[in-house]
Amino acid sequence: MNREEILDAFKDGRIDLKETLSQIDQSYYQNVGHTTVDLDREARTGAPEVVFGSGKTAKQIIEIVDVLLSKEINTLVTRIDEKKYSDLSASLPTHAVYSSDAQLLSIKMKQVELTESFVGVVSAGTSDHKIAQEAALTAEFFGSQTLQITDVGVAGLHRLLTRIDEIKKAKVVVVVAGMEGALPSVVGGLVKSPVIAVPTSVGYGAAFEGVAALLGMLTSCASGISVVNIDNGFGAGYLANMINQI
Amino acid sequence: MNREEILDAFKDGRIDLKETLSQIDQSYYQNVGHTTVDLDREARTGAPEVVFGSGKTAKQIIEIVDVLLSKEINTLVTRIDEKKYSDLSASLPTHAVYSSDAQLLSIKMKQVELTESFVGVVSAGTSDHKIAQEAALTAEFFGSQTLQITDVGVAGLHRLLTRIDEIKKAKVVVVVAGMEGALPSVVGGLVKSPVIAVPTSVGYGAAFEGVAALLGMLTSCASGISVVNIDNGFGAGYLANMINQI
Amino acid sequence: MNREEILDAFKDGRIDLKETLSQIDQSYYQNVGHTTVDLDREARTGAPEVVFGSGKTAKQIIEIVDVLLSKEINTLVTRIDEKKYSDLSASLPTHAVYSSDAQLLSIKMKQVELTESFVGVVSAGTSDHKIAQEAALTAEFFGSQTLQITDVGVAGLHRLLTRIDEIKKAKVVVVVAGMEGALPSVVGGLVKSPVIAVPTSVGYGAAFEGVAALLGMLTSCASGISVVNIDNGFGAGYLANMINQI
Amino acid sequence: MNREEILDAFKDGRIDLKETLSQIDQSYYQNVGHTTVDLDREARTGAPEVVFGSGKTAKQIIEIVDVLLSKEINTLVTRIDEKKYSDLSASLPTHAVYSSDAQLLSIKMKQVELTESFVGVVSAGTSDHKIAQEAALTAEFFGSQTLQITDVGVAGLHRLLTRIDEIKKAKVVVVVAGMEGALPSVVGGLVKSPVIAVPTSVGYGAAFEGVAALLGMLTSCASGISVVNIDNGFGAGYLANMINQI
Amino acid sequence: MNREEILDAFKDGRIDLKETLSQIDQSYYQNVGHTTVDLDREARTGAPEVVFGSGKTAKQIIEIVDVLLSKEINTLVTRIDEKKYSDLSASLPTHAVYSSDAQLLSIKMKQVELTESFVGVVSAGTSDHKIAQEAALTAEFFGSQTLQITDVGVAGLHRLLTRIDEIKKAKVVVVVAGMEGALPSVVGGLVKSPVIAVPTSVGYGAAFEGVAALLGMLTSCASGISVVNIDNGFGAGYLANMINQI
Amino acid sequence: MNREEILDAFKDGRIDLKETLSQIDQSYYQNVGHTTVDLDREARTGAPEVVFGSGKTAKQIIEIVDVLLSKEINTLVTRIDEKKYSDLSASLPTHAVYSSDAQLLSIKMKQVELTESFVGVVSAGTSDHKIAQEAALTAEFFGSQTLQITDVGVAGLHRLLTRIDEIKKAKVVVVVAGMEGALPSVVGGLVKSPVIAVPTSVGYGAAFEGVAALLGMLTSCASGISVVNIDNGFGAGYLANMINQI
Amino acid sequence: MNREEILDAFKDGRIDLKETLSQIDQSYYQNVGHTTVDLDREARTGAPEVVFGSGKTAKQIIEIVDVLLSKEINTLVTRIDEKKYSDLSASLPTHAVYSSDAQLLSIKMKQVELTESFVGVVSAGTSDHKIAQEAALTAEFFGSQTLQITDVGVAGLHRLLTRIDEIKKAKVVVVVAGMEGALPSVVGGLVKSPVIAVPTSVGYGAAFEGVAALLGMLTSCASGISVVNIDNGFGAGYLANMINQI
Amino acid sequence: MNREEILDAFKDGRIDLKETLSQIDQSYYQNVGHTTVDLDREARTGAPEVVFGSGKTAKQIIEIVDVLLSKEINTLVTRIDEKKYSDLSASLPTHAVYSSDAQLLSIKMKQVELTESFVGVVSAGTSDHKIAQEAALTAEFFGSQTLQITDVGVAGLHRLLTRIDEIKKAKVVVVVAGMEGALPSVVGGLVKSPVIAVPTSVGYGAAFEGVAALLGMLTSCASGISVVNIDNGFGAGYLANMINQI
Repeated sequence: MNREEILDAFKDGRIDLKETLSQIDQSYYQNVGHTTVDLDREARTGAPEVVFGSGKTAKQIIEIVDVLLSKEINTLVTRIDEKKYSDLSASLPTHAVYSSDAQLLSIKMKQVELTESFVGVVSAGTSDHKIAQEAALTAEFFGSQTLQITDVGVAGLHRLLTRIDEIKKAKVVVVVAGMEGALPSVVGGLVKSPVIAVPTSVGYGAAFEGVAALLGMLTSCASGISVVNIDNGFGAGYLANMINQI
Repeated sequence: MNREEILDAFKDGRIDLKETLSQIDQSYYQNVGHTTVDLDREARTGAPEVVFGSGKTAKQIIEIVDVLLSKEINTLVTRIDEKKYSDLSASLPTHAVYSSDAQLLSIKMKQVELTESFVGVVSAGTSDHKIAQEAALTAEFFGSQTLQITDVGVAGLHRLLTRIDEIKKAKVVVVVAGMEGALPSVVGGLVKSPVIAVPTSVGYGAAFEGVAALLGMLTSCASGISVVNIDNGFGAGYLANMINQI
Repeated sequence: MNREEILDAFKDGRIDLKETLSQIDQSYYQNVGHTTVDLDREARTGAPEVVFGSGKTAKQIIEIVDVLLSKEINTLVTRIDEKKYSDLSASLPTHAVYSSDAQLLSIKMKQVELTESFVGVVSAGTSDHKIAQEAALTAEFFGSQTLQITDVGVAGLHRLLTRIDEIKKAKVVVVVAGMEGALPSVVGGLVKSPVIAVPTSVGYGAAFEGVAALLGMLTSCASGISVVNIDNGFGAGYLANMINQI
Repeated sequence: MNREEILDAFKDGRIDLKETLSQIDQSYYQNVGHTTVDLDREARTGAPEVVFGSGKTAKQIIEIVDVLLSKEINTLVTRIDEKKYSDLSASLPTHAVYSSDAQLLSIKMKQVELTESFVGVVSAGTSDHKIAQEAALTAEFFGSQTLQITDVGVAGLHRLLTRIDEIKKAKVVVVVAGMEGALPSVVGGLVKSPVIAVPTSVGYGAAFEGVAALLGMLTSCASGISVVNIDNGFGAGYLANMINQI
Repeated sequence: MNREEILDAFKDGRIDLKETLSQIDQSYYQNVGHTTVDLDREARTGAPEVVFGSGKTAKQIIEIVDVLLSKEINTLVTRIDEKKYSDLSASLPTHAVYSSDAQLLSIKMKQVELTESFVGVVSAGTSDHKIAQEAALTAEFFGSQTLQITDVGVAGLHRLLTRIDEIKKAKVVVVVAGMEGALPSVVGGLVKSPVIAVPTSVGYGAAFEGVAALLGMLTSCASGISVVNIDNGFGAGYLANMINQI
Repeated sequence: MNREEILDAFKDGRIDLKETLSQIDQSYYQNVGHTTVDLDREARTGAPEVVFGSGKTAKQIIEIVDVLLSKEINTLVTRIDEKKYSDLSASLPTHAVYSSDAQLLSIKMKQVELTESFVGVVSAGTSDHKIAQEAALTAEFFGSQTLQITDVGVAGLHRLLTRIDEIKKAKVVVVVAGMEGALPSVVGGLVKSPVIAVPTSVGYGAAFEGVAALLGMLTSCASGISVVNIDNGFGAGYLANMINQI
Repeated sequence: MNREEILDAFKDGRIDLKETLSQIDQSYYQNVGHTTVDLDREARTGAPEVVFGSGKTAKQIIEIVDVLLSKEINTLVTRIDEKKYSDLSASLPTHAVYSSDAQLLSIKMKQVELTESFVGVVSAGTSDHKIAQEAALTAEFFGSQTLQITDVGVAGLHRLLTRIDEIKKAKVVVVVAGMEGALPSVVGGLVKSPVIAVPTSVGYGAAFEGVAALLGMLTSCASGISVVNIDNGFGAGYLANMINQI
Repeated sequence: MNREEILDAFKDGRIDLKETLSQIDQSYYQNVGHTTVDLDREARTGAPEVVFGSGKTAKQIIEIVDVLLSKEINTLVTRIDEKKYSDLSASLPTHAVYSSDAQLLSIKMKQVELTESFVGVVSAGTSDHKIAQEAALTAEFFGSQTLQITDVGVAGLHRLLTRIDEIKKAKVVVVVAGMEGALPSVVGGLVKSPVIAVPTSVGYGAAFEGVAALLGMLTSCASGISVVNIDNGFGAGYLANMINQI
């Protein structure tokens, strides 16, 4: 029952006051001990709660997922490595979908129609592909069409220039790059849409686990660029969908 | 003359081939020695070139501004302190507008109609106000209506909560905060629109000139947030307008 | 024998001078080769010596614990992972209690009465729970009643606000958070009691193993907050008990 | 009128509904443009709002102070250098008290009775004295008696040991030190009361403006210690008074 | 006298043994108290000693320059600001040349023929121009022809692409950029010659005085790039000439 | 077919327009899903694309290598550890050569004549040898003769001085050092050729995984030195060959 | 009166008990408000208290110096810039000696005989001379003979090698260097005596105010080297004298 | 044969010129491919070459050790973990001595007489013991008597004070501490001998693998202290012996 149905039932005398208050309370949050599952998130922010899989046990994840699914909420779990997925899989509905590249697990309880406009997801190198995949699948989960363009780093500029007309058609562009993280600056100078830059931890030595790329993106000489955390493909995909749906 | 007019003049025999090529070339870039002014930027990225005032002499700025104004381009100059403005002011058209808070100089050659939707600009403390002002005036320069909400930092949560309904109506929200930079996380958990977080260098000691706020914003536990450089009010306003105009 | 008993025995002629001096000496410190066990700590600082388990071998820990237990001292060992506990367990008294979440081992030789006032222990996310547990169990070990409130991070502010009245009743509040570490600022602005902030290493990328949270807590815009080391649940619990017992 | 008086006046018909609502609203916050003065802070957190003077103009400070004084609130302004004080002084009531050492300005509208217990404020070197002074005057402003002990750094241990009995009598101890910041560890091992450590930016080279002292205090081998921001004498004094008043 | 002339004079009996040894010694080094001027540098490394002007007084610089000029050595002094130059100028020969942009002072005692091949010096923004100038003038001092291309940063890629054919003809390319420092990666992917990257301290916030650019250049995804210190235009020009003269 | 052959075939009617365009396109790039293999690199930058092995799966590497070999391109794969090599080896041509020290895999489809001039590769300690090996083998792959001089760190200066005459004959010198990274400064002061400095991650504690050596090399007091990323033997070897081939 | 004289006077009845206790107390420490002057330091550590001038006012310094001189203690004040010296000079005895290079002020009340063995003070560049001077004058103040060797940085190795025989005769060697700080490694590999390395803040960019030199010295590949704080010439001179006097 | 014997043999005609030169050369260095073993080190610096075991294979170590032993040189190998030792042990002479605590392997070919004066080795906590052991065994290897005092950290000051008279008798004191690294400051204020401070990587969170202790020691307020690299027990022991043998 949603809140309106609860109040109707109360008015009709089908449930008493105590039961009514308890049910209303449960429509907002459900406590499973280790976690306070936020059932009101979609109403408040436009998107259901997403489960951050890292640092939670398989058992904790299943208990949270069960609550969400029982409310018919489309459920996304991030940062699930293959080991944890194999621990989880037996407890999941058969229509659950797992991507080992993106380390994402999604379980849809209702279909989401895809947008006509699309999110561009551009990545610099082969090793940045996983994070780009996380961004693209996240945007799709929330209803955005996406277009991925891979391995077009700035050291081989022609690879980017031959694809730039496609990229220009995106309503918002996610750009994923490690090492020196220069790709968002170049893309940002060529397109009219907002650019969400994702630094990755690809590289070694002075790349400092993504810090070089992060600083490069924050200090970009191009305008219209903002940045999310290192390797945060989910965050970029979430925000890209938000902008794409405006 | 724009490029179509140039080509018409060529066809009509009013100008010869050499003159035509030269004029077309000048419609893209104009070189003033120290700077290659980008006249094609608006066509390519949707917004005219903005002049970054810091690190340029007053003389260099005037030479660049003169080129832009001669092409009837609306011109924005950022990071102009009062000393530099007073050096510049005699050389500027009378309708130039300077904000010492925002350190912005704007000279409009044609009016820009403001959007109906608006950009929310929320700031945490009195000392963050200047950067918030830079963001708001930038978004307005490019055509966005804005709403500023000031001094609603998280240590006095009720100040924020009494204003949250107004903030929720913004199409995109810029959140400006120094010190621990926690405000974007709180706002991000309460609104449905994208949040652009601007860390400021307000604070001392372990604030490390804005690094504490920057890291806090990058690692926010709320979704839908992206970050620009420390004290980069211009960048946030530019991007906010871009999203607001979608 | 405590020091008074030793001196009585000496006066009565039951022990000679040499024995007396040796026994007095041993009432202060006992040397077990690798470690100088501090038996006077409780008299001096109000709490017995706590054994920092990390970096010590199981054998070293047992030798230290044996000394403490032989003096009837309540003994707490921190940072004991499950592997080390299983190496230790056969050598421990049966009433030893181990928490794998908190990585704490406690062995009580005498009961400690719990305070009526209590320590609030508030944590931001599911992954911060272990450190919160370490803080709570430590405070309880030394005699404080505690109240734990879990998973009330700032991105879902309503979860915190529905619990704030309980938190306000605590004599001192420990707030545990990773990522951007914003929770202490919000709690600190709402309560009258001192807040001890514990940054955790939860997060990735620009969280830098807890540094983002640490800096955020140190630069909090709320007053009445102080900070302990990253992941130092023990330190927070120890100090919270100290304040709670005032 | 406080809120009870406002409601009485409303009930008696002395003021109408609109006036009543407006007056109630003003009992919480008063907006002076750049700042939202928090008038409810004392009710909520036990202490009135303190004005952070750094980064505000003299004019802004006076406007805020005027609001607070008009409500008969005891007012403390921090980080006022001598130049700013001289700009302010003509606009202040004659009983305003300024300390150039502590950079504090206090204006009391009602007397505060001092506690019998006291806050110990211990500092390591001559150059740390200003921050110690800021801590002590802050604690006194809020009603705590204090005892200052100066220049007892660890390189001349005997200076500390001759004063330790006095320090042990404090209900809570603030320890201020720059350079390697070792003093809190030594004090913490000798006393039964909580220690609030304040790193200062005293030192050069590898002191890194207080970072060496900050890290040293966070990683102290003594228990019962927590840390505030570099040079944050105010924060330490505020918290010390809070604990002292328990 | 050079060393051969000294030995001839000795053989001919024009100078005695003691005088001979003393003159030979002085052909290697000359001590002026604060400095040991290296007169043998050109023989050993192919280029005369260059005077690093920063941190030396005007008086010290003149004493060093006098020694070099007395040996007919072409003399370059780096990092001379306008104030120091005006202190120096009266003591300099009239053919001394000062560049306030590059902060270089050069005094040629013999002409150096310029190479036919040239060093390309490419800079990203107007504010990077000074360092580019330092690099170009240094390379010219040592005998290289140079070609400067200014303000072709990656955010307006077309500016670079219209100049790339000229850049490709350089035997070695110096690329100067601040902020995210992406230009060397793009240039490096388009040319066949070695690229010497110079990060500048242009930028603010997360540019960290040139660190963002430095890290970006060190982790470039293009090959054939090496890096010199932040703002080290001299070092880049010196090395570029060395390679150009191979 | 190269592009000329394709156009000849088109002219002769052997292939139609569509086939011609497709074949020309494939002469520039070939897309294998995860990677856009750059077949035009040698024409553009003088050297074929090199495969960065780290972060790619064995399967991805083989697919890329197959494309390159099918075009008769000499192929170098870097950062292949022994585990990955053993996964790859069955799929490689028999003339593939693997170096476990240098973690390089090279497969030559045509012989490259070695230069007469040579690249000097000088390393400071036994543990730096692997990176020196990576530099030397890379330079050789592209056609340079090399001379390696090992274990001549500055703490035993005579070891270096007895080899310096050999080093002076190199056209360009690669200097590899960890710990304090002082060797390039000493070598740079003794030779006339350009020095490429490679910091290594050898060392512990304050060596910070190569940062100490990196900073030391960037701030060298000798001229003619430039620096590549930590442990980037490949980058140094590539650039050294480029200079050696001038 | 020293303590023996005080006790004699007490025994003879010249002073009473209260006066005796007070005089004994003052033989250890004398409190001048801001500072607790340590009069017992020489007895305890072998050297009188040294006054750290930075961060103290001229007035505070004079009050401390007066106490020391009144006890006939040789007095050294460090980090006195010329401005502060001119504020102080009128209040000093005429035999006070000030060095503006070393920023040291020394006032000797009794002569100290110089050692026969000597401390070598070797510095890398002209700009490191001031710190070397601080070290040498400090060592001399405490009684060591010194030998200074200037401007022998590693980029011109021959300058060092011609002086190495002199350096080898020192009982202990202080080596002062900025930039990459390589000189101690080279010296340490050539001498039999302990080397005290002093990093200086000379340099720019990646020198990071002396951090590059500090890290280089800490990770030196030579043995027998230890390090003091950046620019801490005093500390090096103090320690060098201590070792020289063994 | 030593060099004198070689020359005698040459004079007597027992060996010819070529053999003589070859033997003399081998008396200085012996090349074993990966390493240039320095046989002249003892003559030059007073101590034989020490083998840094980390980063070398067991095979490389044995080859180096064999050269040293064949010259009857006392041989010390540092940083040998138990795994590497068990790989080595079969190839070692039976009188080789291994310490798993100190990770040191020593093989003496001739006895070294111990000094009468001794090196004090003081450590703060149980976990610092290994590094203290490395320092003590190193000093003993080179001929110094040592006295170890363990677990006397500053949080239990009395443990240190009861041992201080013993420590004062040492000619030089090594102080080993992790966490905040405060022990050298306290010891340095109490003794007359030089203090060599060794920061250890003991601690977590803001200890940053020994950086907190390192910074604390570098900025110590006590004089007479110098610092070696984090965990560098060998370096401290080596230097302590050097000073002890003066």
